[in-house]
Amino acid sequence: MTSKANQIAAEPKRRGRRPGGQDTRAALIAAAREVFAESGYQSATVRGIARRAGVDAAMVNHWFGSKEGLFAEAVLELPFAPQTLIDEIIEGDLETLGERIVRKFLTVWDAFGGGTFAALVRSVTSHEQAAEVLQDFFVKYLFSGVLKTTGSDNPKFRASLCASQMVGLGMVRYVARFEPLASADIETVVDAIAPNMQRYLTGTITRNG
Amino acid sequence: MTSKANQIAAEPKRRGRRPGGQDTRAALIAAAREVFAESGYQSATVRGIARRAGVDAAMVNHWFGSKEGLFAEAVLELPFAPQTLIDEIIEGDLETLGERIVRKFLTVWDAFGGGTFAALVRSVTSHEQAAEVLQDFFVKYLFSGVLKTTGSDNPKFRASLCASQMVGLGMVRYVARFEPLASADIETVVDAIAPNMQRYLTGTITRNG
Repeated sequence: MTSKANQIAAEPKRRGRRPGGQDTRAALIAAAREVFAESGYQSATVRGIARRAGVDAAMVNHWFGSKEGLFAEAVLELPFAPQTLIDEIIEGDLETLGERIVRKFLTVWDAFGGGTFAALVRSVTSHEQAAEVLQDFFVKYLFSGVLKTTGSDNPKFRASLCASQMVGLGMVRYVARFEPLASADIETVVDAIAPNMQRYLTGTITRNG
Repeated sequence: MTSKANQIAAEPKRRGRRPGGQDTRAALIAAAREVFAESGYQSATVRGIARRAGVDAAMVNHWFGSKEGLFAEAVLELPFAPQTLIDEIIEGDLETLGERIVRKFLTVWDAFGGGTFAALVRSVTSHEQAAEVLQDFFVKYLFSGVLKTTGSDNPKFRASLCASQMVGLGMVRYVARFEPLASADIETVVDAIAPNMQRYLTGTITRNG
């Protein structure tokens, strides 16, 4: 248990705040960071994280929707639940799916100034397990969730192709800061990249169609 | 001067090996790593690196062709001179340029097992200057060199778009190892990604063409 979680657990109960309050939420985030780091994404359980935080497992669903949601908030520090993200991206015409993905990606990460993206990449390059966790999250969960709605062939290959373009965009815009892409306005980048994403999502990606 | 460079400089001259021998080459690589790290790519000079290595500046051209060549070998640890790479990529039809870039990228980095690419990304995520150096090298030198031959509009924007796809491919294939892209054979990946690269190189990348 982190010192923060200890501190929270030691606080006297306040009327109407525990067990569903912000303290529980913070304790779950602290516990999740520890458990995901120790066990990896696949092996970590909602029950184990809740036990570490000293709260009921139902609190995870109450505050984060799912293990994926807790991971997104605690480890990726995303400001939204991933299922909400998938729902927002899927909503709309299939032929503008690539456009919505690129726009959402830029809107979310631009708001962070890219620091979180750089931290994410650093953790992947230095820890074998972080790479596995990210693969589980981005390819198996996020892009596979989006690709389920397209009915395209080779959804896993397409998901990893989508990831290659989005991770590269993040690297160039937020980490390496290659100009003019790093400073270009969102719609200019959407116009440039969305058709390529759309091809990965619904186009022909093999030589023989 | 590194202890290695000192050691080399302290060695007695051997007939037929100095000043053009492998010792000089190794001393230049060691000196280049120091000078590029201290001064950045733009400020580093061939003369300064040669001075640090205790050899004549002409040796840089003799062994590496240019400052870019020395950077590629000493810092990026590429097994070829970058100008040779550009020449090889440019050779051929304009409409298969994207295909040649993706195939060459995969052929070169697959041979390394990706370790060097991960080291490159780590240095970019941890050092501000490494990012600048890489931007100079990849965008201003490498992709701009290739784009000069296409006659396309917005060459700098296109160069950074190309970089986003290639850096992302490297991240997903060699660092994060997202499957199935990480293990797919080269021609499968070429078929999937080359048309997207081709669009960045010669296609319409703005909404109004």
